[in-house]
Amino acid sequence: MQPRTAFQSKTVVTDLVLPSETNPLNNLFGGELLARMDRAASIAARRHSRRIVVTASVNHVAFNRSVPLGSVVTIEAKVSRAFTSSMEVYMDVWIEDRESGESIKANEAIYTFVAVDETGRPVKIPELVPETDLEKQRFDAALRRKQLSLVLAGKMKPADATELKALFE
Amino acid sequence: MQPRTAFQSKTVVTDLVLPSETNPLNNLFGGELLARMDRAASIAARRHSRRIVVTASVNHVAFNRSVPLGSVVTIEAKVSRAFTSSMEVYMDVWIEDRESGESIKANEAIYTFVAVDETGRPVKIPELVPETDLEKQRFDAALRRKQLSLVLAGKMKPADATELKALFE
Amino acid sequence: MQPRTAFQSKTVVTDLVLPSETNPLNNLFGGELLARMDRAASIAARRHSRRIVVTASVNHVAFNRSVPLGSVVTIEAKVSRAFTSSMEVYMDVWIEDRESGESIKANEAIYTFVAVDETGRPVKIPELVPETDLEKQRFDAALRRKQLSLVLAGKMKPADATELKALFE
Amino acid sequence: MQPRTAFQSKTVVTDLVLPSETNPLNNLFGGELLARMDRAASIAARRHSRRIVVTASVNHVAFNRSVPLGSVVTIEAKVSRAFTSSMEVYMDVWIEDRESGESIKANEAIYTFVAVDETGRPVKIPELVPETDLEKQRFDAALRRKQLSLVLAGKMKPADATELKALFE
Amino acid sequence: MQPRTAFQSKTVVTDLVLPSETNPLNNLFGGELLARMDRAASIAARRHSRRIVVTASVNHVAFNRSVPLGSVVTIEAKVSRAFTSSMEVYMDVWIEDRESGESIKANEAIYTFVAVDETGRPVKIPELVPETDLEKQRFDAALRRKQLSLVLAGKMKPADATELKALFE
Amino acid sequence: MQPRTAFQSKTVVTDLVLPSETNPLNNLFGGELLARMDRAASIAARRHSRRIVVTASVNHVAFNRSVPLGSVVTIEAKVSRAFTSSMEVYMDVWIEDRESGESIKANEAIYTFVAVDETGRPVKIPELVPETDLEKQRFDAALRRKQLSLVLAGKMKPADATELKALFE
Repeated sequence: MQPRTAFQSKTVVTDLVLPSETNPLNNLFGGELLARMDRAASIAARRHSRRIVVTASVNHVAFNRSVPLGSVVTIEAKVSRAFTSSMEVYMDVWIEDRESGESIKANEAIYTFVAVDETGRPVKIPELVPETDLEKQRFDAALRRKQLSLVLAGKMKPADATELKALFE
Repeated sequence: MQPRTAFQSKTVVTDLVLPSETNPLNNLFGGELLARMDRAASIAARRHSRRIVVTASVNHVAFNRSVPLGSVVTIEAKVSRAFTSSMEVYMDVWIEDRESGESIKANEAIYTFVAVDETGRPVKIPELVPETDLEKQRFDAALRRKQLSLVLAGKMKPADATELKALFE
Repeated sequence: MQPRTAFQSKTVVTDLVLPSETNPLNNLFGGELLARMDRAASIAARRHSRRIVVTASVNHVAFNRSVPLGSVVTIEAKVSRAFTSSMEVYMDVWIEDRESGESIKANEAIYTFVAVDETGRPVKIPELVPETDLEKQRFDAALRRKQLSLVLAGKMKPADATELKALFE
Repeated sequence: MQPRTAFQSKTVVTDLVLPSETNPLNNLFGGELLARMDRAASIAARRHSRRIVVTASVNHVAFNRSVPLGSVVTIEAKVSRAFTSSMEVYMDVWIEDRESGESIKANEAIYTFVAVDETGRPVKIPELVPETDLEKQRFDAALRRKQLSLVLAGKMKPADATELKALFE
Repeated sequence: MQPRTAFQSKTVVTDLVLPSETNPLNNLFGGELLARMDRAASIAARRHSRRIVVTASVNHVAFNRSVPLGSVVTIEAKVSRAFTSSMEVYMDVWIEDRESGESIKANEAIYTFVAVDETGRPVKIPELVPETDLEKQRFDAALRRKQLSLVLAGKMKPADATELKALFE
Repeated sequence: MQPRTAFQSKTVVTDLVLPSETNPLNNLFGGELLARMDRAASIAARRHSRRIVVTASVNHVAFNRSVPLGSVVTIEAKVSRAFTSSMEVYMDVWIEDRESGESIKANEAIYTFVAVDETGRPVKIPELVPETDLEKQRFDAALRRKQLSLVLAGKMKPADATELKALFE
């Protein structure tokens, strides 16, 4: 299987925040943003693997900045690293000011997807090749996050999580 | 402020999986489950704090078991630990077999909420008192997760994350 | 078939009232509550019968108290009586005050479901055993309601509705 | 206030049954039909009263015939009787066969609405004048249903429900 | 195949404008009205052809008047002309004032549908017979619009669009 | 006001076709695509004008190719010409094959938006500068379409529609 670049999986979803999607403070509901990001990330994972993909986990989402009613929100998703049959997808979320036209970063999120066949069984996928500095940095961190996830799930001994352990030394 | 028990925040949401909420494999869409869990967790956080609450982060969600069309899904959410103004909410998700009536665990998820006033500023909340063994175990782990989250966000030095560091020694 | 208790069918659905679900007075839309109750009641009926169930009728719903935007609403559904293949489901709906944490009763509702096989034909279901005083009282009243329903549909002569007739003597 | 005819409140809502609105047997979900009927009935009540209206109760709905996916469903709603500030709305629901173009009756439903001012307080409404035989028959039955509703709610003694009592003698 | 009248395809859809369907000026979202009109028009086309129908094009929609939150909106759709397997559907959209009960025209729209078999292939449909003056006028204009559409798509030479050309002479 | 390029308004919306959005042939519903295009186009118009924008008309949409369930659909919207306070937005819609990763054009659509102030009154907007050949070609055609629209609405005499008239000579 031929490796693919992160750029080849890039997925952009731009949409409005409508009244039906807001919480009591008139900001976008957390759950609505989680669902939109799941759709965007699943398209990026599908573009990388060209397979049916299913959400395996949500590794981290920080809602650093609330997204007010009427905003234009842009989610940009790219696969950050591919493992045997799973992919980590990294997303940047931007809000755009109507009057100045400027965009500010609202939050980042990391989801993991698994590529499967029609019966739901995992299948092998191409490697991911990072190109930009940011892509390389996220590619490296993805391995630490995978080890962390295995340690927290009790599927890897902390002592074997070499990448992760280095952080605490 | 009087401390409250985990049990006092317990929130149960039982619902069906309808055709409009499924992916190409006829299982519940990841994004839809993320949104339902956000609603359930926000009610638990609100019951503990009696304040407006907003989603601060999704710490971990593992979709271990797919949830087929037609399932009855039950989300049980309880606050696992309260900090100054934030709360970790721990959720267990169950699927129920129609014919045997038995429930199996589908996945766990951890979200963090912040209690705010009408202008969106964080406010102080009561402490959480864990009672059962499982509640105590999750209460302890919540501190490690908070340290991990601060380390990953670059807001705490790994060396200071004493609870977490112990894991790797 | 072994009889089951009302408690075994108990189904709790807790959810928020969001802006998209309100009427011009900023209260929960009647139609939205009717739909939520249908989902809750169908799960209770399914838990009792362990069969596919379809809504047969809505016997009575009184919207005694309006449910304001932002409320936490809890629907508690239990089968109140089982007949050959139909079940009456009784629901209590509660609204919870965020600041005091107290719940008040918003309304009651009664729906009837029929258990069917995959082709849609009615199937025999277990008997229901009421245990608490309230369950027993609703169990008895269910028969009067069934007679009333048959009389109103012209399928039973008023003179034969012995339980019901007694009310007017 | 000038009385209005039933015909003046007549409201017709025709719509499709889409995949997202069906149950496991591929028929229209009971809850979805209840919600659509609430919208249709509220428009009829508003046309009669020219006021804001809120759902007061669902008196009876019988799902006699299931409504398959892909059907064209027509709800025809008319006010059947007006009381001081409440109105009974009677609905007939029809399904249309695509190939023959013929319509068959799927079910009937009766909802009650109250006309209110901007603060939610009941206001006086015009009388309803039935014209056709069917309208007159439903107008008369509406009084019996109102008495029945009061008796069941414990707000009227059975002995005083003269219209209703006559049924059982 | 027996011709059918425009009246036989007449479809009326009356509905409310709810908060979740409005834009930042509190008027009905353009996209929501486009979707509702598509549903209404598809039912009219299906009633004329008694076939599965799919949207082929939207020929013209002018949003002359905004539709405020809380309005009752009525869409009246009728087939205006049938070609070999396609139909033009003409819609009038009305808004109703709650207090006066009067209706004003909000906009008109023209959609085209194609009748197809189960595999999606176009099938022959009955002719349409216009009866009223307005129906006749729209029937005639439909041919000019069809020519215009073919010219704009480069499928007809302007010189051959005799009906249309006459307009500019 | 400084003119802006077509590129500056470019808006990309990528999304999936889910089961709840399909017609009886398992293709994306026309009405759903119309609504998604309205959202995408309104963002492009807003990016050009930096104002609140409302849909003024749908000038032409041809559904040349059906969009099957499970497709990834990309809508690319750019302002094609700005007039005093209105903008024509041109959209290209692409479907992406999962296995080959190739995209094919599904349809084009043209919507018109008006920029308004908070009270809904039209405001002046910047000019649009086309850069690529395709942008220039659409810019020129936009004037003919505007004239056509005015002629069809009876607001311009065919003889004065100089751009349009030339087509038929």
